[in-house]
Amino acid sequence: MSGLSGFPELLPAERNVELHVLDHLRRVFELHGFANVETRAVETTDTLLKKGEIDKEVYVLKRIHAGEDEGDAGLGLHYDLTVPFARYVVENAGHLEFPFRRYQIQKVWRGERPQRGRFREFTQADIDIVAEDELPFHFDVEVAQVMAEALGGLPVPQLTLQISNRKVLEGFYRGLGVADPAAVMQVVDKLDKMPPDAVAAQLAELGLTEDQAKLVLALAEISTPDTSFVERVRELGVSHELLDTGLAELAQVVGSTRSIDGVTVVADLRIARGLDYYTGTVFETRMEGYDQLGSICSGGRYDQLASDGRHTYPGTGISLGISRLLVPLLADGLTSDRSVPSAVLVALVDEGSRDISDEVAARLRARGIPTEVAATAQKFGKQIRYAERRGIPYVWFPAAQHEVKDIRSGDQVAADPDEWNPPAEDLTPHIKESPT
Amino acid sequence: MSGLSGFPELLPAERNVELHVLDHLRRVFELHGFANVETRAVETTDTLLKKGEIDKEVYVLKRIHAGEDEGDAGLGLHYDLTVPFARYVVENAGHLEFPFRRYQIQKVWRGERPQRGRFREFTQADIDIVAEDELPFHFDVEVAQVMAEALGGLPVPQLTLQISNRKVLEGFYRGLGVADPAAVMQVVDKLDKMPPDAVAAQLAELGLTEDQAKLVLALAEISTPDTSFVERVRELGVSHELLDTGLAELAQVVGSTRSIDGVTVVADLRIARGLDYYTGTVFETRMEGYDQLGSICSGGRYDQLASDGRHTYPGTGISLGISRLLVPLLADGLTSDRSVPSAVLVALVDEGSRDISDEVAARLRARGIPTEVAATAQKFGKQIRYAERRGIPYVWFPAAQHEVKDIRSGDQVAADPDEWNPPAEDLTPHIKESPT
Repeated sequence: MSGLSGFPELLPAERNVELHVLDHLRRVFELHGFANVETRAVETTDTLLKKGEIDKEVYVLKRIHAGEDEGDAGLGLHYDLTVPFARYVVENAGHLEFPFRRYQIQKVWRGERPQRGRFREFTQADIDIVAEDELPFHFDVEVAQVMAEALGGLPVPQLTLQISNRKVLEGFYRGLGVADPAAVMQVVDKLDKMPPDAVAAQLAELGLTEDQAKLVLALAEISTPDTSFVERVRELGVSHELLDTGLAELAQVVGSTRSIDGVTVVADLRIARGLDYYTGTVFETRMEGYDQLGSICSGGRYDQLASDGRHTYPGTGISLGISRLLVPLLADGLTSDRSVPSAVLVALVDEGSRDISDEVAARLRARGIPTEVAATAQKFGKQIRYAERRGIPYVWFPAAQHEVKDIRSGDQVAADPDEWNPPAEDLTPHIKESPT
Repeated sequence: MSGLSGFPELLPAERNVELHVLDHLRRVFELHGFANVETRAVETTDTLLKKGEIDKEVYVLKRIHAGEDEGDAGLGLHYDLTVPFARYVVENAGHLEFPFRRYQIQKVWRGERPQRGRFREFTQADIDIVAEDELPFHFDVEVAQVMAEALGGLPVPQLTLQISNRKVLEGFYRGLGVADPAAVMQVVDKLDKMPPDAVAAQLAELGLTEDQAKLVLALAEISTPDTSFVERVRELGVSHELLDTGLAELAQVVGSTRSIDGVTVVADLRIARGLDYYTGTVFETRMEGYDQLGSICSGGRYDQLASDGRHTYPGTGISLGISRLLVPLLADGLTSDRSVPSAVLVALVDEGSRDISDEVAARLRARGIPTEVAATAQKFGKQIRYAERRGIPYVWFPAAQHEVKDIRSGDQVAADPDEWNPPAEDLTPHIKESPT
């Protein structure tokens, strides 16, 4: 871990865990036809400040020796991948095919004051589907399914993907006769950090009656692993057209997104997402034993993502906080069993025969086996220790009759550099899941 | 390409080319036992300004709403991957195993004034081997070999890896009786941008006699595809102990690094590298037809990379400018044949049977075939056009008897979603090399 607060850095064995996660995400996203895009790290401050909510957290750039007349560059580091993607879509609309599925895995930056658990640099993995003018609802189901599948393969504790729909909340509040549903949603969004009493008090401040506040809180308590939430909501006796639409949409997403090993999918009507650009489906994700992290994977439907005057580009997507997820797990002991990619260390008999060891290594690499050659011709015992300290499982001894030793078991066998293969699972580092 | 000068952004089909390059580099580096590391994007300005040469180009960060009392964050974006890596090694020395092979592929930033061909954000791929206190010379050979192998697999014009050694230059200049060899080296380094006459004039300004300047230029003209440069240097009649050491080292690197398809390896004594931290072997790389880019892959040996007072960490490495290499080639037409990863589009008979198409897609994906389902139930002709526009080679028609069409050839055959496979080369996008 790094010496600069908020800027996590990983050791090589830890980075192997992150690479494993990134590779897995990429594989799942590409299997589903999501194209990869990277956007530049900087946006104009105009673009960054359009969404007022987090303008305090932006890092702006300045050339260190900018002349007096030059002023600021007018550029800042992006704080998420949604705003840059919206800009990219509008800028390149003429060259993109819609509906456009994209995944994007990049670092983002927020100028937080240093404090425990707040990152100032972190990696996110986003998937979004964007269309021109109109985006059929089944894409909301698709992003939920794809992200659930992606989450399912991660070496992390049990996850709960919580799905809600702002039309359910807004329709319910409107049915109740509430004047400002958006304000109520922002208060309900605090249920994670505040006891229900305090939330009720804030609802009263917004002018809700005690009965209205009770029903708002009763709605927020509904969480079901299937579509039975529809009935539970109906039992509260509120009706509104928008509520009907929202319930039908949410039932479709929850009904079509299966819980799988490692990921429980639930409808959870406490989920509102504070950000006001969401217009329908919303997602959050909790990790068992790590409640204090809040949601590690969030998103939803935004019908007004971007517009260039002639067209609007509605979208739906989810963003996974890779650093938010991994850094605490790595601190708790999640790691890999190697600090190098090498599966084999070729021993060196003496410096004069380095050619021979190099040749063996080349023959192993030619067949896809990551291999390094010992740095110096120490005694073989020391060369074995050298492999052991790096987690390299095999040491190769070049000779007229070559031999290879599995240094974990001690087994040593004759082997041909053009034939021998380690078991497939030894070709790459193993992830060692954390004890929690 | 992006609207913001100096910040290149790629369209999805272009990004496929970059991904292909990144994957290839990673595969080669890992086969050779190089571990991946990422460092944070920011360093303290103290760290960044230690190397005085490019301090004008640093972007410093400021929180947009920093209080008056807060001052600057004291942080800037890294402008290369060597300085951050040196800091990382010193900071984590107790947790690293030396010699430490690492590769690092990240964006870097330079606060250049906008002008054609200058990037303000670009991606580099670096390999380095670093040791504690002492680094055997054979690692210079290794980084040259590994990078040559990596360059060999790239979809780019012919490359020339030029290798030199500063001990040869310094020893030769000292043997000539030159007082300040470093100053001469910096002048010789300009031979790329200046005619030999102008360089000779600058050498005269440094106090060299006409004969000395002639010999300095004669040395710089020596370039051989093998170790015959040694004789050519000897013929110039200059002798010095450091020259002998340098010639032996350079002969070892050039003699051991084979030219391969796409990469010509040469000794080239014009290569000096202006940066004063190189202490022996130096590398540059030219791409045929793109002289104006200068060197696209450079590096060398630096014995004083980093020190923590108790230990020094000598290193040797090379850095490949991925954006510098690719962006001009993409502008000249290098691209891929798909804008999506999908190899198959599953057609949709009608919206009511989306489940059936989804199920086919799931069965194909389960066997590793990237697949998407048509967005809407248009006429099949339109769905085929949908695939065509994205470069998806196959369209699947679900029915009691499934069929799959290769839309390039028009061939349509009966197929089983649990059995059918496209040819392996159709699983991923193809790179279409640029016409130059």
